[in-house]
Amino acid sequence: MRDVAVIGVGMNRWGELWKKSLRAIWTEAALEAVDDAGVDHVDAMYVGCMSSGLFVGQEHLGALLADQLSMGPIPGTRVESACASGGLAFRQAWMDVASGLHDIVLATGVEKMTDVDGGAATDALATAADQEYESYHGVTFPGLYGMMAHAHMHEHGTTRRQLSAVAVKNHRHGTLNPLAQFPMEVTAEQVEESVLVADPLRILDCSPITDGAAAVVLVPLEQASSLTKHPPVRIAASAHATDSLALHDRDDLAWLGSTERAASEAYAQAGITPENLSFCEVHDCFTIAEIMVIEALGIAPRGCGGSGAESGVTALGGKVPVNPSGGLKSKGHPVGATGIAQVREAVLQLRGQAGDRQVRDARWGLTQNMGGTGASTVVHIFERP
Amino acid sequence: MRDVAVIGVGMNRWGELWKKSLRAIWTEAALEAVDDAGVDHVDAMYVGCMSSGLFVGQEHLGALLADQLSMGPIPGTRVESACASGGLAFRQAWMDVASGLHDIVLATGVEKMTDVDGGAATDALATAADQEYESYHGVTFPGLYGMMAHAHMHEHGTTRRQLSAVAVKNHRHGTLNPLAQFPMEVTAEQVEESVLVADPLRILDCSPITDGAAAVVLVPLEQASSLTKHPPVRIAASAHATDSLALHDRDDLAWLGSTERAASEAYAQAGITPENLSFCEVHDCFTIAEIMVIEALGIAPRGCGGSGAESGVTALGGKVPVNPSGGLKSKGHPVGATGIAQVREAVLQLRGQAGDRQVRDARWGLTQNMGGTGASTVVHIFERP
Repeated sequence: MRDVAVIGVGMNRWGELWKKSLRAIWTEAALEAVDDAGVDHVDAMYVGCMSSGLFVGQEHLGALLADQLSMGPIPGTRVESACASGGLAFRQAWMDVASGLHDIVLATGVEKMTDVDGGAATDALATAADQEYESYHGVTFPGLYGMMAHAHMHEHGTTRRQLSAVAVKNHRHGTLNPLAQFPMEVTAEQVEESVLVADPLRILDCSPITDGAAAVVLVPLEQASSLTKHPPVRIAASAHATDSLALHDRDDLAWLGSTERAASEAYAQAGITPENLSFCEVHDCFTIAEIMVIEALGIAPRGCGGSGAESGVTALGGKVPVNPSGGLKSKGHPVGATGIAQVREAVLQLRGQAGDRQVRDARWGLTQNMGGTGASTVVHIFERP
Repeated sequence: MRDVAVIGVGMNRWGELWKKSLRAIWTEAALEAVDDAGVDHVDAMYVGCMSSGLFVGQEHLGALLADQLSMGPIPGTRVESACASGGLAFRQAWMDVASGLHDIVLATGVEKMTDVDGGAATDALATAADQEYESYHGVTFPGLYGMMAHAHMHEHGTTRRQLSAVAVKNHRHGTLNPLAQFPMEVTAEQVEESVLVADPLRILDCSPITDGAAAVVLVPLEQASSLTKHPPVRIAASAHATDSLALHDRDDLAWLGSTERAASEAYAQAGITPENLSFCEVHDCFTIAEIMVIEALGIAPRGCGGSGAESGVTALGGKVPVNPSGGLKSKGHPVGATGIAQVREAVLQLRGQAGDRQVRDARWGLTQNMGGTGASTVVHIFERP
């Protein structure tokens, strides 16, 4: 398999984009990535999207968006893995280039979530859980993560204040990201006094409903420097693992097995350990998720993720900054786009182009994108040239 | 890239499977394919599915179905391209094995369409068309193909009787397929007297709404004979092309550009011409579709596809049997599963295991799977060992 690099990134300002349709949002990000790469064509395109059927009544996005790109009748493939759709679309694009099939491949993600009301959006998101054993009976995603949070607090003594610390940190990071949906600081008290959604999770523990897209361009590493003016960022590892969809089938509600397995495989591929990481972009769909993810990634010992944000270890300036972009919590979470936006952040950090949120001397970056309550996880590791 | 072979196939009896859920249907086909291959594990799994969100309220099928397989937390990836979802899932599985990433990969397709009423099924299928410019305004899929049929009749003199001949032929083939949904003969008169759906298309011009699944196992060609007792079938070509999603953006309503492009690329990869084909499995979602597809594949000259079924050229025993399985028309059309079932038929034919519908001395087989009104097409060519 060939070594693969990312040479272009694009993303639009995320939020409630009522004046723009899914195709318009996607095209902005896609063309920005192509422009940033400096290429005049792409050979194939992938798009991660969770549920455009339920959100906007449109499936068949591969063909629709390949046509919007206006670069010929190229293969356009949609990949879906709930909130990990973007990360998995990136992985398929990596496989495409690594295999030798195509040289210039566009990996994208998009979700248009605010054309339906909040109840319908919650119902659409519930299709990431087990329909027969979970969502049919009325449980929502905040409900499922609320149970995981209770299990983590019970087993490991994780505190309400530690959950809040994740929101406080990520919103602080988000103030440094001009494309974030909610780039404002919040205090622990504000988080804890915000409206209760599913005990113990409050509205400021939850990532928002967002419209947005992101795109990146992949090429063979050995062709990268002849194609682009930017330093190419090498994809050092790609790993994908699954777990049971329904929480009741897992041994431990407070542990993310798919993230542990994907991360372990990714570290082996890249030949590094968590100690080597300069930063991570992880799937903080709820504050408890970031706490559990950093444990499964080996950044914090099992059961000790709660102290990550509280102690400052995972803040910008700390030992391993987690979610310098603001994460899903502040940047927003258009579910299909999130995994690609994580890659964009990793590339900007490793190029040294992350502006006010730049991690100093960043060399190794990791992205972790997760579907549902962790039934699927995609992990990628990137290296500075 | 490595040469890849198919060594196992599985499919359940298709129809209105009200007593079985999506996961149960899928698991039957998946385990049959694994059993047929004779392997004791798979390294990764792909599933093609168009719209499980709208049909059964369940996205995130990759994780769900990988877990159902009970072969460990393997990568499970859902691919969607409307009615070409199965063909595209097969192509991603081929890419996975060809790249060297995994050795034993399961490619599957599934759709559970009859849990909703007919109107909701028609609405779900309409998400394969352009939501903003076509389906929003009320056009249905029979309506779109009705327009294509009128254009073809106007431009090329295709007759009502020629449309009927496709249905008559495919239902005759279907009587030889024990897994077909509607394995009964129909006459041209019955087709022409059946209820009008969208002029000129009548109900017997349309493929049915179906529950079903299919699965195949892919391995590197050089490992195939050590893994299985069956003669391995080589994948000689894989091609994927797109077109504009909305009909109004095309130069000619009566021509399938994406199929022409994918076929042309596939013939070049395999080093053959249409003259070499022993049989084809093509996307006859409506009778007019088969007529247009055999033109775009080069089996009939442009504008002359209408005479294919009428003259007997495309029947079993004819020069190039088209849809020996009964096609979508008689076998059924669970949209995400169709592309995989086509591959199963090609493999059985090339193994010489197709029973009463066996094409004599079959050496080269082609599958053509199409999304929407042809906005995406996936073509594969297979060779007998």
